[in-house]
This record gives sequence, structure tokens and C-alpha cells, in this order.
Amino acid sequence: MIFKEICVLAPGLLGASVMAAVHKRNVAERLTAWARREETRKECLAQNWCDAVFETPEEAVANADLVILCAPVDVIPQLAKRIAGSLKSEALVTDVGSTKAFICKQCEAVMPAGIRFIGSHPMAGSEKTGLAHADADLFKNRACFVTPTEHSSPEWVMKLVTFWELLDALVYETNPQEHDQIVASVSHLPHLLAAALCNQLSGAPAIRLAVAGQGLKDTTRVAGGDARLWRSIFEQNRESVLSAITEYEKHIAAFKTAIETYQFSTVEKLLDNARKCRMRF
Amino acid sequence: MIFKEICVLAPGLLGASVMAAVHKRNVAERLTAWARREETRKECLAQNWCDAVFETPEEAVANADLVILCAPVDVIPQLAKRIAGSLKSEALVTDVGSTKAFICKQCEAVMPAGIRFIGSHPMAGSEKTGLAHADADLFKNRACFVTPTEHSSPEWVMKLVTFWELLDALVYETNPQEHDQIVASVSHLPHLLAAALCNQLSGAPAIRLAVAGQGLKDTTRVAGGDARLWRSIFEQNRESVLSAITEYEKHIAAFKTAIETYQFSTVEKLLDNARKCRMRF
Repeated sequence: MIFKEICVLAPGLLGASVMAAVHKRNVAERLTAWARREETRKECLAQNWCDAVFETPEEAVANADLVILCAPVDVIPQLAKRIAGSLKSEALVTDVGSTKAFICKQCEAVMPAGIRFIGSHPMAGSEKTGLAHADADLFKNRACFVTPTEHSSPEWVMKLVTFWELLDALVYETNPQEHDQIVASVSHLPHLLAAALCNQLSGAPAIRLAVAGQGLKDTTRVAGGDARLWRSIFEQNRESVLSAITEYEKHIAAFKTAIETYQFSTVEKLLDNARKCRMRF
Repeated sequence: MIFKEICVLAPGLLGASVMAAVHKRNVAERLTAWARREETRKECLAQNWCDAVFETPEEAVANADLVILCAPVDVIPQLAKRIAGSLKSEALVTDVGSTKAFICKQCEAVMPAGIRFIGSHPMAGSEKTGLAHADADLFKNRACFVTPTEHSSPEWVMKLVTFWELLDALVYETNPQEHDQIVASVSHLPHLLAAALCNQLSGAPAIRLAVAGQGLKDTTRVAGGDARLWRSIFEQNRESVLSAITEYEKHIAAFKTAIETYQFSTVEKLLDNARKCRMRF
């Protein structure tokens, strides 16, 4: 076993699914958790994949070989700071946040000597949120980033990669900056575009929403996500998101110019290029 | 019965579904069709909802009380012109195209005195295309526009509205120009945005597509549509699409400026407004 005891801090859908997945595959001997709310702690303890819950994160991590921070991205650094003095020597700490450069920098900085923080980002999720929807196969065949820095030892990176592979994820190893550029273009920008479209429609006559077909529903689905969570993501990934927006404006402009100047064969080429790309997904 | 004989020209998924829906609900006595390809004519005739197929559109419409043009938007006007001289007096002609101002203007202009063209646009569709996927309930609870002009008599508008209501569609009556503005914002713009996003990703390293999650798949799904068909839609709805793009650029800019100037409480407000709008769909 690469990690005897695994501790999940702030289990929501992702954290609880990690625990369920670890339990199902026998990846660890013992699984523990801490949650801020007592209700969540009780709910967690009632699950067959949870061996113990603690009232403070400091107590929860005391004996853990792997600690997984599952809080919202803006809370992860402060949680790392809070547990830093209570970690077992030789512990590995990771997270599941959607941004990596800011989180890895902050978390590495607060870890005591000999304890490693290496970021993770499993690209899994669901419409459903919360512990009750934990899914032991949530990570199966889904991408999961592991983002070492120049401070990460290859041996521990390998341990973390193996951990996610044992949960059947498809692991991509990259540095935090490159991770942030990738997710800016495949996740953060698409979220922003959907939100901008909703904002445009929110000011339009109600009939426009009434006639909305499945296409529009699909296009805008992600905009239903939590505003506070996404604000923090844009805050932490500001530069890559701005670059992605600037690049996108050029792609919109290409369509606009072609339509304005009656270059409809160019419009058709742009549409066909998009269609071919979409077919590769 | 409001229409004894109904003729569908160029049945694909939509036209065949109209026929299946009419048959299921006993809306007409006789259902006929014309298709350009012999293979399609044979396939059509083999269905229990088709009484006769013809080798030319002129023959097909000769005895029809309602003619429904189901060709691609760029072919509809020429098809209307072709059948104009062969229509029964007192016939009503409609279509199912995604744009209305251009089509209604062209089609009204070629109709002989006493014969009405009134546009329709059922906002129904499917991933699946072609006659084989005909669905008698495709229009059930889906929006369907009926777009009269100043030349349309209220009596015939009412007949067309009743026709679509008999197929269980939710009918919206509006003029062709307003229809085009509505679909520009709820359908044509979202299509263009998805295509622009695919074009941006098509130039990016392959890993970006490999890690694409369900969110990106949903956001870009519509970009998989037929490029030639959509080119014609943008061509016919050029002005409304350009207005919608210009308005959208402002909504993107609102996000960009807020992120650039570190106004993240504004970003959160924009995201929350979008989320609330999305929940109304």
C-alpha cells in the first residue's frame, strides 16, 4: 500500500467520491475525514467508506500518510497553513482544486521541511453536489492533473500519480502554470462564455428564454455553477483567463468580419473547421 | 379537418416527423411527399404515414391543401418558385426553415394571387438526421413560430396556428423580423460562439481536447452541425446575427474589464446574474 492512512479535509462531492473510490479499490487501510459542519461529519461517519471523523483538521491529519484538501480553491491555502504544524513527518499533501499555480505556491510555502505538497486536479464532477452523491467511479477514465514544481521529488510525484491511477483516472503530469493555461482554455473560458451569453439573454424579452431549445440549454449549462466558487477560480487564474479571452475575441472577430463583408465561403470554412474539431472530442 | 391533403416537400427528419405526427393524430385525410432522391422516395413510401410519393414537386403539390417546404433554408425560395404554378387555388404553403424574413419575402413574392405563403419554424430537432429517425412526438411541447406578414389573412394564420397546435407544439405568432432577432440570440449566436470556441481549441495542443470534460462537450455540442446549412442561416439572418454578436462582445468585455482591473466582486455579480438566468430555462 502506498498510503496506509488517507485523510480527506472538507469532503463534498469530490472528497467523498475519493473516499468511496479508495474504499472500493482497497487503496488504503484507513480513511478519515474532517468537515467544518457537524452535520456533514455525522453524515460522513455513517458511510461505509469512512473509519473516523474529527472535529478539527489538525486532529484529522495527525496520523495520515496522504492528506487531500477538498475545500473551495480560496480556502485551500489557509487550510494547508492550518494543518502544517500537525502533519506527520513524511506525509504527502495534495488538493483537488481547479487552479494550480496560486495554490501550489501558497501551499508549498507553508509546509514544514520534509513534508511535500503536490497539487492534483481531477477533472471530474457532476450536476449533483455534496457528500450524498459520492460516486466510487467518479474518476474512472477521467483526466486528472498532477502538477509538481521544481521542489517536488520524483519519488513522491510517482506516488501521487499512482494513487490517482489506482482510482482509474487518466493522469496528466504537468507544471502548475501549464495546467492553468490548459484549464483556462478548456474550462474557465467556456464557463465565462456561457455566463456572458446568459447575461445577454437575461436582459432580453422573456419569450427568448421560453423558446430556448436543447442547444441553448446545453451551451449554457455550466453557467448554473456556484458564483463564489467561480469568482475565486477567475481570481486565481486571472492571467491565463485574460489571455484565453483575448484569443477568443479574435475568433469571434473572424466570424464577425466575414459576415459583415459578405464572405460567406469564409464563414462556411470557419464552421467546418469547428465541426471537425468538435468531432475529435 | 382543416386540411384534407397535406404535401411535404423534401422530407428529412423534420418533414418526416411532421408526416408521422399528422398521421398519428389523424390531422389530415391524405399525406403525400416529394423527395429529390429516388432512394428517399422509396423509403418514404414504405412508411405507414405516407400515402403517395411523386417524382416532381409540381405533381406532388397539385392536390394539396397544405404544402410544407422542408428543404434547407437556401433551397426553400427556389422550391416555392418551382411549385407556384402547380398549386391548387386556396392552397396554403408554409416551411420549417430556421430563418424567416428572407424566406417569407421571397416566397410571398412568387405565390400566385389567392395562394398564401405563411412561414413556420418549429424549434425541434435532434442529433439524429434523416427520415429514418422520424418522431411523431418531435413537436410535442416544443416552441413553433408562425410568422405572418401584413399580407397574411388572419383566417389563414389561424389555420396554420391550429395545425401546429394539433401536433402539440407551443405556437408563438410573431412577424418574420422579430422571429429572426429572437433566433439570432437564442440559437444562431450560441452556435457561432460554440464554433469560435472549437476553432480556438483546434489550434491548441492535443492534450487540451484529451482532457475536455462534460462541460466543454455540452458547451460546444451544437458546433457539430452541418457547415453548409449554418452558413446559409448566417447569410439569411446576417443583420440580426451581427447585432447579437456586437451585443455579446459587450458582455464578454464586462467580464474582461472586471478581471483585468481586479474587480472580482463585479465578476461574482456577473456570474450570479448568469446563474439566476440559467435557472429560469
